[in-house]
Amino acid sequence: MVEAARARALGLACGSLPAGHRNTITDVPGVLVGHTTINDGDVHTGVTAVLPHDGDVFQEKPVAAGEVLNGFGNSIGLDFVNEVGVIETPILLTNTFGVGTCANALIRRAVRGDPEIGRQGPTVHPVVLECNDGYLSDIQAMAVTEEAAEAAMDAAEEDFAVGAVGAGTGMSCYGFKSGIGSASRRLLLDREVYHLGTLVMANFGRAGDLRLPDGTRLDPQAARIPEAGSVALVLATDVPLSHRQLRRIARRSFAGIAWSGSFFGHGSGDLVVAFTTANRIPHEPDADILDRRVVAESRIDRLFQAAAEAVQESVLDAMAAAEALVGRHGHTRPGMAEHLRRRA
Amino acid sequence: MVEAARARALGLACGSLPAGHRNTITDVPGVLVGHTTINDGDVHTGVTAVLPHDGDVFQEKPVAAGEVLNGFGNSIGLDFVNEVGVIETPILLTNTFGVGTCANALIRRAVRGDPEIGRQGPTVHPVVLECNDGYLSDIQAMAVTEEAAEAAMDAAEEDFAVGAVGAGTGMSCYGFKSGIGSASRRLLLDREVYHLGTLVMANFGRAGDLRLPDGTRLDPQAARIPEAGSVALVLATDVPLSHRQLRRIARRSFAGIAWSGSFFGHGSGDLVVAFTTANRIPHEPDADILDRRVVAESRIDRLFQAAAEAVQESVLDAMAAAEALVGRHGHTRPGMAEHLRRRA
Amino acid sequence: MVEAARARALGLACGSLPAGHRNTITDVPGVLVGHTTINDGDVHTGVTAVLPHDGDVFQEKPVAAGEVLNGFGNSIGLDFVNEVGVIETPILLTNTFGVGTCANALIRRAVRGDPEIGRQGPTVHPVVLECNDGYLSDIQAMAVTEEAAEAAMDAAEEDFAVGAVGAGTGMSCYGFKSGIGSASRRLLLDREVYHLGTLVMANFGRAGDLRLPDGTRLDPQAARIPEAGSVALVLATDVPLSHRQLRRIARRSFAGIAWSGSFFGHGSGDLVVAFTTANRIPHEPDADILDRRVVAESRIDRLFQAAAEAVQESVLDAMAAAEALVGRHGHTRPGMAEHLRRRA
Amino acid sequence: MVEAARARALGLACGSLPAGHRNTITDVPGVLVGHTTINDGDVHTGVTAVLPHDGDVFQEKPVAAGEVLNGFGNSIGLDFVNEVGVIETPILLTNTFGVGTCANALIRRAVRGDPEIGRQGPTVHPVVLECNDGYLSDIQAMAVTEEAAEAAMDAAEEDFAVGAVGAGTGMSCYGFKSGIGSASRRLLLDREVYHLGTLVMANFGRAGDLRLPDGTRLDPQAARIPEAGSVALVLATDVPLSHRQLRRIARRSFAGIAWSGSFFGHGSGDLVVAFTTANRIPHEPDADILDRRVVAESRIDRLFQAAAEAVQESVLDAMAAAEALVGRHGHTRPGMAEHLRRRA
Repeated sequence: MVEAARARALGLACGSLPAGHRNTITDVPGVLVGHTTINDGDVHTGVTAVLPHDGDVFQEKPVAAGEVLNGFGNSIGLDFVNEVGVIETPILLTNTFGVGTCANALIRRAVRGDPEIGRQGPTVHPVVLECNDGYLSDIQAMAVTEEAAEAAMDAAEEDFAVGAVGAGTGMSCYGFKSGIGSASRRLLLDREVYHLGTLVMANFGRAGDLRLPDGTRLDPQAARIPEAGSVALVLATDVPLSHRQLRRIARRSFAGIAWSGSFFGHGSGDLVVAFTTANRIPHEPDADILDRRVVAESRIDRLFQAAAEAVQESVLDAMAAAEALVGRHGHTRPGMAEHLRRRA
Repeated sequence: MVEAARARALGLACGSLPAGHRNTITDVPGVLVGHTTINDGDVHTGVTAVLPHDGDVFQEKPVAAGEVLNGFGNSIGLDFVNEVGVIETPILLTNTFGVGTCANALIRRAVRGDPEIGRQGPTVHPVVLECNDGYLSDIQAMAVTEEAAEAAMDAAEEDFAVGAVGAGTGMSCYGFKSGIGSASRRLLLDREVYHLGTLVMANFGRAGDLRLPDGTRLDPQAARIPEAGSVALVLATDVPLSHRQLRRIARRSFAGIAWSGSFFGHGSGDLVVAFTTANRIPHEPDADILDRRVVAESRIDRLFQAAAEAVQESVLDAMAAAEALVGRHGHTRPGMAEHLRRRA
Repeated sequence: MVEAARARALGLACGSLPAGHRNTITDVPGVLVGHTTINDGDVHTGVTAVLPHDGDVFQEKPVAAGEVLNGFGNSIGLDFVNEVGVIETPILLTNTFGVGTCANALIRRAVRGDPEIGRQGPTVHPVVLECNDGYLSDIQAMAVTEEAAEAAMDAAEEDFAVGAVGAGTGMSCYGFKSGIGSASRRLLLDREVYHLGTLVMANFGRAGDLRLPDGTRLDPQAARIPEAGSVALVLATDVPLSHRQLRRIARRSFAGIAWSGSFFGHGSGDLVVAFTTANRIPHEPDADILDRRVVAESRIDRLFQAAAEAVQESVLDAMAAAEALVGRHGHTRPGMAEHLRRRA
Repeated sequence: MVEAARARALGLACGSLPAGHRNTITDVPGVLVGHTTINDGDVHTGVTAVLPHDGDVFQEKPVAAGEVLNGFGNSIGLDFVNEVGVIETPILLTNTFGVGTCANALIRRAVRGDPEIGRQGPTVHPVVLECNDGYLSDIQAMAVTEEAAEAAMDAAEEDFAVGAVGAGTGMSCYGFKSGIGSASRRLLLDREVYHLGTLVMANFGRAGDLRLPDGTRLDPQAARIPEAGSVALVLATDVPLSHRQLRRIARRSFAGIAWSGSFFGHGSGDLVVAFTTANRIPHEPDADILDRRVVAESRIDRLFQAAAEAVQESVLDAMAAAEALVGRHGHTRPGMAEHLRRRA
């Protein structure tokens, strides 16, 4: 349940398109999110799972695309996503050194669901995105387990927490404590209602560079260390789209990141996975030629705008709910909400 | 009319899939090809036009993709093709210095067809591929005119010549005289007949590197100069495909080029444009969401094989019909058919 | 001579890094810019030339890279630039339908400089970027000539005009009259002074979306038509860089575009060409192995920031100097400076 | 110790360039290769490690590049390699479900070498390539351990086994038993001797499609199942090269794969990692601007040819030394050498 303060509650709504009911990625029907949060001594980390639908993702593969602005990172799965144009597992987010273990967990879960994987049938291709939480958390402990990954998937539901939870537990953004943020936008196409939602693990930006929607800068007065944390983005929609269209839309999330103040620092990986729940490819189709629906390209600008706005708001949302933390080695990140209150 | 010797008539059939009726790109229903051939003193060049259908390509845009193995060249249009996933003009082939003029001709022709282009509506994006025929032809003369480009499009029909005609007039391949070649393969999907056809302007390969389908090498005993000529490929099909799938199929044409003996030399640009006649996007769609059909990815291998085989055979076809030429500066390229006859 | 109002004179400086002496791309030593402006009835267009150095660019090829955020357009040359990692002609900017003619002009000029091009030696690969000025100018007239392109190159010097000149003559941005803008940033590396400069043909953005450096929105109260104009960017530096590094830096110009208010609309091509004057490749090197210098990757963030800031300021600069224009069909674009004055 | 039959000993030398002394990737000075082989019941798998030099790879990062022809797979690390242009760990090869565990092993080993990784300093980015050995081995057992990965790195030396060892233990190629193969080519640049070497985990190709260097086909008379195994390639050289040049060279390995008979099947991932030992980037450079050496682009064709030839021969080498295996579920792959002997 989303109990923490949201960006919008702090007056930080972004853009002009209407938000969905929850203003999270789960406004896209069927999408579920779950967390495992690990706070244990110097370890502040976890796993966040995004499930594209509540069925077997391997059997019903959503059309998907990946996009990379800055490949500085350890994420796995984007080569496959862009080659075949689908995801076939849930998407896991975790810390930089948890990718291998989360990939193993996704493989084992898929095999449990379909014992022919890697036997009669082809293998399965996990998708894991990551950010480096080593400033606040003991990343060398490699504390993420396959059980933690499983638990995040098992916990997935429509109502989920934002802020310093799950994979976001140890993340920082623009010098503030950060975590997982989310937002959504509502769209009309052929007079029907659709949604585009985003979920962001925001762990980037130099202190002092944060820009609020009204243009003001917010500076936690922390050291201006290089931008070296990364940002991982998941974009979901129920608008019918092709792989190429999803990739174009994913690219617009870079506008949302830039609007929040960043110039995409060298050490800050910037990766997006986008999927549509409207086009699903059966693992074993019963025909050679399949029907699909796609948005007319000349109507795609509203999806571009929705993606940029929702990503910008998701970044602020990740900070809005995250309280100050004193982490590993006494490293501290202040909370943005507290900072805003004091400033007001 | 295809009167010249074809690769297959010389015993140079490639692969195992059945060829279409004509064994050319026009086995794909609706596709038309036309040439303008320019032989004037030291000038041996021209234009070849591939029309994806006999309607207005700007109003009915075939889904398309471009792929580049070696970007050494001056071709225009692939950025647009891969961004929007369509072609909106015929595809022109010409020499390296004729690209600008052919692009101008495509723009003027499109404007004649739709006077709102660049006024109320958006602009139009021409596609022109090129190879360097400067060894045999005076490329500095810049002899290709907009009229030549127009004439090639006006001449387009199902029966077209291969060999040293059109844009292929001054081309060389593996030390032999070359030109335009074509081939096709027939496919069954859901028990219906489809075709995949290729048209190649073959102007690459070092003398001595040519490999025939049975594995033997063919050496014109010419100087082993660097591979610096380029190859331009057009791939057409009536199988319903997405942009991503077309791009994957286009990539398999590299196997066909390699099978003919090349290792993709530094100075030899290698570009493909692939389109399907089965998915057309109206310039002004009357709905936000459109229906499309695509092949099931698990059935795509037969298209990969068809593309590789047809490209390999198209390369041989380009040489099969091209007779020896003494061109600019006394430069000479022997004919492959004559060479094969003497060798037999 | 830069006489028109500059962005900085209007209080629109961007970012925190110091600007160079002229605050234009020609702060990079050796870089020259020239314009040909065409105002003739309904035609308001032209050509702008960026010369990377005052020598023969074909003989001394600057290391270069291209980057595409949105390939919606007709530009030529980026495939070659990214394959071989150099430019070998000046860079020309013009309108969407002038690309072919400008490419022809670049070829002819190169052949005059080296009569072996396309004979004994390889061909030459022109670079032309474009935007669609069809709202204010009669683009169907195809008014750009090879002479206009030549004249722009011949006129190139360190002091050059910004605003509605050259290729910028008929351009619009965020509903305002726009044109060519420029900016630069000064950098210290190993205690030596370097510059990074940008030149932008700004022809994008919906009316109402323009954001000033202080975060306020500026709305000309014009129709909110789709973003369909494109933006073409040239980035120059004397910092020694590799192709890969230039490409990373070029990608940061997307932050500058986003900071100005855009979400990268569907119909708005977004292309960058970046080059360094510090690494030049001789056309005929006298050794197999060449020496090069590159910036240490861990110091590259200052170049990222410089690129983002300079591009943002170049966009504002393009509008700052451009006065209101009533163009083709009575279409009108107000001037931003006048709008700011009235607002103050 | 390379004791098994080599491709060359079977008369299967490829191309015309001279091989290095060992005709393996370790002809590139400093490169080392080690294996861990796991044969345990139905499990036939392992790990193969390629060390670019015998120092600390994290402290001295070789310039590197990745290239993907078919992204169907689970490999990790290519995004980073292409973003920053280096590798900073050894390269591990393993089965499709061993990637996560091998990545974990690489991270732990790097942290042991530099305890500041992920603390004061940035994180480390492992590179792991994979193929699916599920036909012969019980891939669901996930039998690869971090210890196995460590052992492969610890065992690395100049003399190493080829054939069904290490990661190659359970691999198949064109219906034959396969494994790890290697080859090298010797090059002269500026009158000095250089080497380019390749190591291939060959696990692709339909039975019947294998083509020997003389053009003949070799068919094990096995079921023609779809090409679904993948091929992972490592390319090393001591020629000084940039990231862009390494990527171009890596792309030529596709010619070698095609020459062996493949058309790059849908389910067969095809990935290359290429590095040069001649350009190493210190983790903490002591200057902002660094010296580098690169090959003149006009001399790069000999490297292209070397890569294509060495990859083709490496594929044959992987089969030459691999004896027939009856694996999981009674699945059998005959040995190519035995097949050739019987045929002779």
